[in-house]
Amino acid sequence: MIKVIIGAIGPGEGATITDRDNAYNLGQLVAKQGWILLTGGRNVGVMDAASRGAKSVGGLTIGILPGRDIENISDAVDIPIITDMGNGRNNINVLSARVVVACGIGLGTASEIALALKNGKKVILLTDNAEAKTFFLSLSPNLVFIAENPEIAINLIKDTLK
Amino acid sequence: MIKVIIGAIGPGEGATITDRDNAYNLGQLVAKQGWILLTGGRNVGVMDAASRGAKSVGGLTIGILPGRDIENISDAVDIPIITDMGNGRNNINVLSARVVVACGIGLGTASEIALALKNGKKVILLTDNAEAKTFFLSLSPNLVFIAENPEIAINLIKDTLK
Amino acid sequence: MIKVIIGAIGPGEGATITDRDNAYNLGQLVAKQGWILLTGGRNVGVMDAASRGAKSVGGLTIGILPGRDIENISDAVDIPIITDMGNGRNNINVLSARVVVACGIGLGTASEIALALKNGKKVILLTDNAEAKTFFLSLSPNLVFIAENPEIAINLIKDTLK
Amino acid sequence: MIKVIIGAIGPGEGATITDRDNAYNLGQLVAKQGWILLTGGRNVGVMDAASRGAKSVGGLTIGILPGRDIENISDAVDIPIITDMGNGRNNINVLSARVVVACGIGLGTASEIALALKNGKKVILLTDNAEAKTFFLSLSPNLVFIAENPEIAINLIKDTLK
Repeated sequence: MIKVIIGAIGPGEGATITDRDNAYNLGQLVAKQGWILLTGGRNVGVMDAASRGAKSVGGLTIGILPGRDIENISDAVDIPIITDMGNGRNNINVLSARVVVACGIGLGTASEIALALKNGKKVILLTDNAEAKTFFLSLSPNLVFIAENPEIAINLIKDTLK
Repeated sequence: MIKVIIGAIGPGEGATITDRDNAYNLGQLVAKQGWILLTGGRNVGVMDAASRGAKSVGGLTIGILPGRDIENISDAVDIPIITDMGNGRNNINVLSARVVVACGIGLGTASEIALALKNGKKVILLTDNAEAKTFFLSLSPNLVFIAENPEIAINLIKDTLK
Repeated sequence: MIKVIIGAIGPGEGATITDRDNAYNLGQLVAKQGWILLTGGRNVGVMDAASRGAKSVGGLTIGILPGRDIENISDAVDIPIITDMGNGRNNINVLSARVVVACGIGLGTASEIALALKNGKKVILLTDNAEAKTFFLSLSPNLVFIAENPEIAINLIKDTLK
Repeated sequence: MIKVIIGAIGPGEGATITDRDNAYNLGQLVAKQGWILLTGGRNVGVMDAASRGAKSVGGLTIGILPGRDIENISDAVDIPIITDMGNGRNNINVLSARVVVACGIGLGTASEIALALKNGKKVILLTDNAEAKTFFLSLSPNLVFIAENPEIAINLIKDTLK
């Protein structure tokens, strides 16, 4: 029985407090729906905050790690997938998620959004980065959605899964 | 809290009845220990049988899939990780498992055993393929273990996890 | 003796005539400098046009292919590198190039630009896509350069290689 | 015009003097045929020796590197392809070669032989490792060939390319 996996992406070291708060709340709400949370697995930024949020309400978390072992893993990750692929693992992150939610924007995030859209995945932007919203909407108007807060992101995901 | 993940590898289309029986029983025993089962995720051979065994007793199963979507996934896989990397995903299979158990030998299996050993992982051979046992023991005598049946494989895993 | 490899990226099926013209001219100029041209290797769009340009003046061309064989390879590619990684090969494209030049923008291109910048590579944008220029300059002002035409791109590359 | 690429694989740090001598001679003979030599690119063992052999007679050499930059590259490599994939790059090595020649056997080599055969590639074993010959011939009798010396390997490659 395939479980629903939702991807939370966003900056690592460069995450803002807002990004991390959104990620934490998103992780909680994803877990409360019974969905599995998937992130890039490291112990910083959006990856870590979203995983902590999910664990705070008993959710299950997957981390797709860039290194060759569990060094630097978030301690809120239950299931580490070890890729030893560096940023090359970003394609796996987005392919493995039913929907991707970006809490903030960084270079790795931008690559994941583009790869998700290239692979036909829906992407929800939860950020006040106007340049990112303009750019990705111009590239893929039918697959990019804007959410003002985590609750709206959850509703957009529900619409997608229908 | 990182969960214990055990990898079951072996032939797909080329699996023998013995390979599949061993895989099914191994999957059951892994799940009964509370460990997560990881396989290559497709709906054939050892991957499928091990996943079915784990699900038969309520276990959790991960499938690291070679394609770009869930086509040909075993319906006993809970968590599909989509790699779109073909046989390149074999390195991820073995890196993500704490211990790898080979139920039978095929070309993909041989690549996974070699990659596991190269990455310093312990490998348990559950097969009557004498050439494989001789070859891999000659390459890596300290990391290769022989199990006559799934119960012995489980005991070897327990020793490893101590 | 490591040769200088320059990456030309840009849309495949979605390339405009301007994108392809820029790519062809860029490929020619890269080859005239004695540099090797690297692309995504397929027989469409910017990949194909840049490779044709390089071959028109006797250059050497590398194609990093997404499939598991040479199906759909541009016949202007000398050296096919077969990855069987789909869009996951985009990280290899940018890591293997000393500098990356984007002739136009698509989803795959956007992922490659972001991955290049994430990996610390300089990226030259040869496009009139204003949203892309604004977005990537905002993310990485020190590594993104704008070129109005292929000749300016070549001069920017020369500055980088000094 | 796609060039013929021949892959030379074998142990790195664990290569014997015989392995390195065979690799050097094989690299020379490959280059004299006008073929391009492809290796794993590092500055040790068979990779390094084969590349040096090819360069000694003016050949062209490709190195598919495991790291994220050119650290530890053999200085006999002309064209570095940077994968940042660790041992995951082994699948790319064998997919990109028309034929693969193993000069000696190690764990990485064993994974590459198995991946080559899995992908339907012919593999020539140039080694006195009896266990390896027995094992791989048992797995894939139609794709595995034995060569007593580099000259015989070249003749086997010529037969394959006909």
